[in-house]
Amino acid sequence: MSTDFTTSAPALLHAKHSSAHPLAPLAAEEIAAAAHLIKATWPPNTDFCFKVITLDEPAKLRVLPYLEAEHLGERTPQLDRKAFVNYYLRNTNKFHEAIVNLTKNLVERNVRLGPNIHANGDGEEIIALERIALEDEAVKAEIAKLQLPEGAVVISDPWIYGADGVDDDERMYQCFLYMRDPHNPAEADSNHYALPLAISPVISTEHMKVIRIDKLPLGPDSTITDTTPYKIKPPNEYLPEYQQLRTDLKPLNIVQPEGASFTVTEQGTSAVLEWQKWSFRVGFNQREGMVLYDVRYDGRSLFYRVSLSDMNIPYADPRHPYHKKSAFDLGDAGAGSMANNLKLGCDCLGSIYYLSAVISNAQGGVDSMDNCVCIHEQDAGISWKHTNYRTNRAAVARSRELVLQSIITVSNYEYILAFIFNQAGQMDYEVRATGILSTQPIDEGVTVPFGTVVHPGVLAVHHQHIFSLRIDPAIDGYHNRLVYDEAHAMPRSDLNPHGTGYYVEETVLSESGGYDLDIDRNRTFKIQNAAVRNPINGKPVAYKIQAPGFQKMLADRDSFNHRRAEFADHNIYVTSYRDGELYAGGQYTNQSRGGTGVRSWANRKDDIVDTDIVVYVQFGMNHITRIEDFPVMPAEIMKVCLKPVNFFERNPALDVPPSEQAYNQSTLLSASREDASRHMQPTGTEALVVGKGGECCDSKSKL
Amino acid sequence: MSTDFTTSAPALLHAKHSSAHPLAPLAAEEIAAAAHLIKATWPPNTDFCFKVITLDEPAKLRVLPYLEAEHLGERTPQLDRKAFVNYYLRNTNKFHEAIVNLTKNLVERNVRLGPNIHANGDGEEIIALERIALEDEAVKAEIAKLQLPEGAVVISDPWIYGADGVDDDERMYQCFLYMRDPHNPAEADSNHYALPLAISPVISTEHMKVIRIDKLPLGPDSTITDTTPYKIKPPNEYLPEYQQLRTDLKPLNIVQPEGASFTVTEQGTSAVLEWQKWSFRVGFNQREGMVLYDVRYDGRSLFYRVSLSDMNIPYADPRHPYHKKSAFDLGDAGAGSMANNLKLGCDCLGSIYYLSAVISNAQGGVDSMDNCVCIHEQDAGISWKHTNYRTNRAAVARSRELVLQSIITVSNYEYILAFIFNQAGQMDYEVRATGILSTQPIDEGVTVPFGTVVHPGVLAVHHQHIFSLRIDPAIDGYHNRLVYDEAHAMPRSDLNPHGTGYYVEETVLSESGGYDLDIDRNRTFKIQNAAVRNPINGKPVAYKIQAPGFQKMLADRDSFNHRRAEFADHNIYVTSYRDGELYAGGQYTNQSRGGTGVRSWANRKDDIVDTDIVVYVQFGMNHITRIEDFPVMPAEIMKVCLKPVNFFERNPALDVPPSEQAYNQSTLLSASREDASRHMQPTGTEALVVGKGGECCDSKSKL
Repeated sequence: MSTDFTTSAPALLHAKHSSAHPLAPLAAEEIAAAAHLIKATWPPNTDFCFKVITLDEPAKLRVLPYLEAEHLGERTPQLDRKAFVNYYLRNTNKFHEAIVNLTKNLVERNVRLGPNIHANGDGEEIIALERIALEDEAVKAEIAKLQLPEGAVVISDPWIYGADGVDDDERMYQCFLYMRDPHNPAEADSNHYALPLAISPVISTEHMKVIRIDKLPLGPDSTITDTTPYKIKPPNEYLPEYQQLRTDLKPLNIVQPEGASFTVTEQGTSAVLEWQKWSFRVGFNQREGMVLYDVRYDGRSLFYRVSLSDMNIPYADPRHPYHKKSAFDLGDAGAGSMANNLKLGCDCLGSIYYLSAVISNAQGGVDSMDNCVCIHEQDAGISWKHTNYRTNRAAVARSRELVLQSIITVSNYEYILAFIFNQAGQMDYEVRATGILSTQPIDEGVTVPFGTVVHPGVLAVHHQHIFSLRIDPAIDGYHNRLVYDEAHAMPRSDLNPHGTGYYVEETVLSESGGYDLDIDRNRTFKIQNAAVRNPINGKPVAYKIQAPGFQKMLADRDSFNHRRAEFADHNIYVTSYRDGELYAGGQYTNQSRGGTGVRSWANRKDDIVDTDIVVYVQFGMNHITRIEDFPVMPAEIMKVCLKPVNFFERNPALDVPPSEQAYNQSTLLSASREDASRHMQPTGTEALVVGKGGECCDSKSKL
Repeated sequence: MSTDFTTSAPALLHAKHSSAHPLAPLAAEEIAAAAHLIKATWPPNTDFCFKVITLDEPAKLRVLPYLEAEHLGERTPQLDRKAFVNYYLRNTNKFHEAIVNLTKNLVERNVRLGPNIHANGDGEEIIALERIALEDEAVKAEIAKLQLPEGAVVISDPWIYGADGVDDDERMYQCFLYMRDPHNPAEADSNHYALPLAISPVISTEHMKVIRIDKLPLGPDSTITDTTPYKIKPPNEYLPEYQQLRTDLKPLNIVQPEGASFTVTEQGTSAVLEWQKWSFRVGFNQREGMVLYDVRYDGRSLFYRVSLSDMNIPYADPRHPYHKKSAFDLGDAGAGSMANNLKLGCDCLGSIYYLSAVISNAQGGVDSMDNCVCIHEQDAGISWKHTNYRTNRAAVARSRELVLQSIITVSNYEYILAFIFNQAGQMDYEVRATGILSTQPIDEGVTVPFGTVVHPGVLAVHHQHIFSLRIDPAIDGYHNRLVYDEAHAMPRSDLNPHGTGYYVEETVLSESGGYDLDIDRNRTFKIQNAAVRNPINGKPVAYKIQAPGFQKMLADRDSFNHRRAEFADHNIYVTSYRDGELYAGGQYTNQSRGGTGVRSWANRKDDIVDTDIVVYVQFGMNHITRIEDFPVMPAEIMKVCLKPVNFFERNPALDVPPSEQAYNQSTLLSASREDASRHMQPTGTEALVVGKGGECCDSKSKL
């Protein structure tokens, strides 16, 4: 890292947004001002390619008094607004990182990074790369050898290059080529992933030129053959107009006649949500997408900041160039910049509130991310029920949930990301993995143990999805600890003469590090505040982490995959808090070499007891591909749940109004049991509305 | 097991229901006829206590041709209708098992069982036991020592006695005593579990008398003290009228203006459901509650029979008499007989079809189980989505699910049991555990490592819930195998020079037995039909089992708990099919001694490759109690998913119509982005309906 400039820029723009919340994302004017201040540090005709201009969050120690004052309704301290900026001098490899103080109109830091530090890709760059690959004469010559049918359209999908340490110091893209259905080449939405080609151009982004054309192995091993004429295969479209659609699905509408139960207060670029005793601030940035700040329940603090910190998707195929397929979709692309514009009635059902955002673009201007977050309530079945069998009186409450959803498209693939809150003090993070499998060509009749043939000539390689959810906790305050409970069988003794007893033991983690689940011991991690005790049972207040088990990274410990994905080897990482440590795979994941992420931070072996800690929860799946996942896969759902443990004095959902027909307005489809004979005749009753039922839960009817 | 009678009974009733489906539960007349035929084998004044009169399912080999003919629309073979009967001669320990041929009016088998074989409890018996405990003079004398306030009401909860081999040959109940809030003793629905007493009468059911009064330990160890005056503690009610209810939850209604998408054809005592290419028959019996038969998708067979086979709930407290707390709620009570009468708008939301059933009662008559199953559709979020980033065209389908739900109350506790089907060929079984924790008294200030204080003076002991889902598969036919896949890192080699590769290896299970998950290997069990190959990729058609990991039984291998719960030590059991093997814990679980369940069947070491197999999937939780689980616990959700793997040729939900606003009728709460300025002013917008949005998914808009 070598410093080029540390320049104080002229006060070209007035200090703005001093009233902005310190955790609010940069407004459009702030992005523009930051770009302006950066540009002013260079000669006038310099061509810039901005990779990101985003909020540089103030030091936590300065934000905490702000939040305290805010919640007390007191005058809040003034905090400087700052921008974090990454940019290239266009058509060079000169990659910079800068901090711009927008309040003081000052470039506080402006350094050139490198070597082996590269920026993420973005939409503009991807479109340019596609064109470059397809317009390259050598690529065209190679495609010509395929002897594709007249009018065939070839598509290039630029892929993050990955890293293996072999001639990969410069920033590159590996393009994979496909074709549209040659019988229907005008269909711009043809599923080209069903027709992969065995040619893979590599582009250097410094000069935006094809520097190499890789040929892809088609057999069971690494053998590469000369490009031969392509044998036409059938298409496999996912668009509805190419399907024989089901005709027997009747509408299901979600209606909230009195509106929704939540309140959104948009304050500039962030929004405060209040719902069923929950309150939090929602931010949105280029890299993480949704970020929740200052999450509270009934006024008690729970989390300072929660976001998806990172994800890694390493593939199983060991052969060149596939062995480098290992994407970090947040750091290499951006969950914010890839967010879909969500459409009413398509992506969300019910009464929907949309949030929009602005993020920076390559010119230092602003891209509008309209409707990038949708907010709605949903019914989640029964929350709790008890029937007194002596009186037959049932008490039952339904579970209402608040959902904040964002959907990202990363080339072929989609992630549906959601924060979900319920009325029992529980907060979940849910990921639905969908979209189109990354495919590659394979010779007919060949099978490999690292993937599944999902279409004639199409291999979908197995891959792991490993997510890291970053939880910066504030359980009743900012001094927390991480502990785990285990359940153990009691040895036989006078106390346990029949060998049936078991006990729970709590272990306090004293040092930052990576830790693992152990299902056979029911190991359960909890974030505790040992200084705050439950008034009934004296236990420390806590939130437990319920994360499903998953197979951790399979790539070996010496591999680049393992070195780069610093979160992928443990279920839990815990560190002492440091400003700026946000991304579990490190700040710059594209072609990264490791050593800059959570594994490295945890290796400080910091004391983590009753201090400001950060917890990274890893979860995911080893996606062993099946043909049912093609041409677009049914969502695979993964969920991390954060649940109170001795935080409240009783079930916090006990005050949810009872579930009653007068409120729920359900419809009875079956014949009323009062009218029907007990021994029904065979009937072919279609389930039609036969009446709005009036009955409801028995109230105090005696046995 | 000694034979008393094998009698052919007089033909008192005409053969009936010869037209009944062989898998349909017994109709009321059939139950009556069976009781009548049994009674006729005994002297006229014999007093009977029938424990169950239920369908004795015909041999599978005889049902299969029936199902084949049925699906072909051909004439179905005649199969005798038979009843399985358990009864006592009342006020004796003479427990009998009988098979009654209803078609031939013949008692085919009628044997006295024993020793150490005992029947389940039932509602009538429980009510009688409660009275006996409270009217016993010795119990009254012990209660008097508590010096309870004037008007205090004591409640007795009879508990399944359990088994420890100590003087427990006879059939007994262990009663736990509680009191209603003494300041409000007229409240019949007072939560007495908040006020447990330390007196526990034991009743023998042969003579229905208290035979012993156990005193309960109140300290950290097994020490028993004399009964002393009770110190009044506060109540902890769950009823809504005792809460300060939330007032900010607005209604959310689920409306199906054109009715539901499913068809129910009630045929006598069973019903055929058809929905979105699924079809199956629903039965309902005293023990298992819902049973699904002949589950097919698009005409292809998947499962012959699926039901919850058993569950076991062993508790952690090693002290007498708590060490015996280990309930088998199905075999000891009955998921059918304990089923709630579900109420419209209370237990189910939307457009609901109810099924009712009849089960036998103690007199050999019939109890109506009205509305014991509810059927409805629900929206389950996005099923799949892909956006072509080049055209911005999104294709998205929502996931609609069909739910069959039954809720059972087992004394203090509730289970919400559901089969859930989706449009991607997936079938789930979901359990929600809710209700009231089983509580016991504890001295103030005492803590124990096997439970949590959830209220002053109230200990909720940790316990395991271990469920066994029985899957009798028929994946494209009745000859199936069980295999598992594991993912393994590849060793470094010329093929894998960078150490990133991994591969999937399939292992065929050749012998019946118990098998386990291994998350670190991503071990995934699949039920395969090796004779039927996927036409695209040649893989055997299969369904995989996605069951969450759980801590298996903690009681040691020599304990009665372990011996009795024959399913609780492995994630998966697989056996070769035998008629009559239905319940993983054995036919008679009450005070059982083991040796009669799935572990024993699996120990036959049968060949299970490409034959008729049965798979038992265990799942559950170690419920480490928290104060938030009291006075009624937020549902803890567990789910087993069965998903197709190379069974179809592509995503089977691809033909679901696209998710569009015209169909979904969602409501826009936020201001339209077209009208709003990008840089919003701070506003305190409540989320109210501001307009029915008309926009929908972009169709072919170009980038």
